Amino acid sequence: MLAKRKILKVNFRKGKKAEEEDFVAVDKPTNIFVNGNYFVTLMASPRNIRELAIGHLLGQGVINALEDIEHVSIRGKNVNLRTKAEIQLEATKFPKVIPTACGTSEDIIGLLGKSGVLKLAVKFSAENILNAFKSLHSASKVFKKSGGTHAAALFTRDGKLKFCMEDVGRHNAVDKVIGKGLIEGVNFTRSFMISTGRLSADMVIKCARARIPLAASKAAPLESGILAAEMSGLTLVGFVRGSRLNVYTRPRRVKF
Amino acid sequence: MLAKRKILKVNFRKGKKAEEEDFVAVDKPTNIFVNGNYFVTLMASPRNIRELAIGHLLGQGVINALEDIEHVSIRGKNVNLRTKAEIQLEATKFPKVIPTACGTSEDIIGLLGKSGVLKLAVKFSAENILNAFKSLHSASKVFKKSGGTHAAALFTRDGKLKFCMEDVGRHNAVDKVIGKGLIEGVNFTRSFMISTGRLSADMVIKCARARIPLAASKAAPLESGILAAEMSGLTLVGFVRGSRLNVYTRPRRVKF
Repeated sequence: MLAKRKILKVNFRKGKKAEEEDFVAVDKPTNIFVNGNYFVTLMASPRNIRELAIGHLLGQGVINALEDIEHVSIRGKNVNLRTKAEIQLEATKFPKVIPTACGTSEDIIGLLGKSGVLKLAVKFSAENILNAFKSLHSASKVFKKSGGTHAAALFTRDGKLKFCMEDVGRHNAVDKVIGKGLIEGVNFTRSFMISTGRLSADMVIKCARARIPLAASKAAPLESGILAAEMSGLTLVGFVRGSRLNVYTRPRRVKF
Repeated sequence: MLAKRKILKVNFRKGKKAEEEDFVAVDKPTNIFVNGNYFVTLMASPRNIRELAIGHLLGQGVINALEDIEHVSIRGKNVNLRTKAEIQLEATKFPKVIPTACGTSEDIIGLLGKSGVLKLAVKFSAENILNAFKSLHSASKVFKKSGGTHAAALFTRDGKLKFCMEDVGRHNAVDKVIGKGLIEGVNFTRSFMISTGRLSADMVIKCARARIPLAASKAAPLESGILAAEMSGLTLVGFVRGSRLNVYTRPRRVKF
C-alpha cells in the first residue's frame, strides 16, 4: 500500500531545501473477471482485493448475496469469481468503472507514445507556484459554497492566471482547462497546471499529452502519478501548502 | 453548478439543531459522441462541457490538436464532435471512463430496483457518528504516511468499529468494507458506514444495495448522492467535523 520515493522538500519562506525519502500511496490496476469473462479494471490500493471484488459486484447488482458466489481465486492483480447461477454480464447494463489510465508502465508508454518525452528547458519559480494556489482558492466559487468540487487552473510561466475551472471530478477540471487552452490557442509549453486533486497517472498523462511541463497539487501524488511523470519528463509537485512544496520529479524546472 | 437543498444542521456539543437551506455541488452525466458514435459518459459539473469534451479527447489520444476537430455541437448533456480525419475509436484502445452510476433518476431506480427502498426503523446516535470519525482517523495508517488514500469503515449501531479499509479510491474503500461485511456475515441493516470521500450517487447506491441505512462522510455530498439517498430511503450525513454534522435525508434515524 506504500512505496518510498526520493523527493525534494522545499520550505520556501525559510529557505530550506532538502532531499529526502518519503512515502506515497500505491495505486495499481485490479482486474475483475466473472465466470471467465473480463468485467472491470479498478485502479485501487493492492490490498484486500478479494473484498474489493465481492463488494463491487454487490454494488453493481451482479450478485445479491455472498451465497451467489461459488468460488474466488486471486492471481496477482486478477480476481476471478465464479457465480453459482449463470450470469449474463451484458444484461446487468451498468457501465464499467475504468479510470483513464490503467497505471501499468506499458499503458503509460502507450498513452504517451505519440507525444514523446517532454524535453522543455522552461523554468518556473517556486514562489509563482505557491501564489498560484492562493489565486486558485479565491477563484473557486462553487467550492466555497458547496465544498463539493475540485479546481484546476493554468498559469503562465511568470505566474499569471490564464483560467480556472471547477468540476466535481478532478479529472474533469483538468480536461476543461486543457480544452479551454486548446480553444484559445494557449502555449502549453510555457504554462503550468495546478490542481486541488491528487496526481495519479491519468492526471499526469493529461498534462503531458498537452505538453504542459509542470503540474502541481495541494494534495498528495500517487505512485502511478510519479511513474507517469518520470516517464513523460514532467515536473511533478505535490503538497503545495502555505510556503512549502514537494518536488517529486525533474526538480530542475523549479527555481527557488 | 449549484443546487439548494434543505438540510438539518446539528451542532451536537452546543445542542443546536436547525433546519436550513444550503448549497450542494451538482453532478450530471455528460455524454461525448465522436463522429456519431458514443464515446464516453463523464459524471461532471454541467458547465464548460465543450472544454471538457475537447480536453478529454486530447488526453485520451483521440485528437492531437484543436485542428483535428471540424465541428462541435452541444444538445443538452450531449456533446457531439466531428473530426476532420476519420477516427477508428476502437483503435484508440483506451478504456472508457465511466463512473459507477450515471446519476440520472432512471439509472438510480434501475440500480436500486432489486433491493427496493430501505424502510428500516433503526436509529443511530449523533454522538456515535461523531466518535466514529475519530476512530477512522486513528485507523487510517496509510493516509497518515502518504496523504494519498481514502478510508471507509463500518460501525455497529452502538458505535463499535467493525472494520476499516483504505484505498486510493473512495469507491474502492466502500467496496472493500461491503465485501468484508459479506464475507463475515455482518448484519448491514444494524450498521452505519462512514467515509472520507464525497457522497455521490454511486457511493450511496453501494450502501443502499447492501441495505446499510445510514452513510456519513466528513466531506460534502453531491447533488446526485442526495437524490439517490432520497430515492433509496438512506439517511445521508455530510460534513461530519468536530462536533457538528449535516443531515440531508431521512433525519429521523439520527438521535441527538
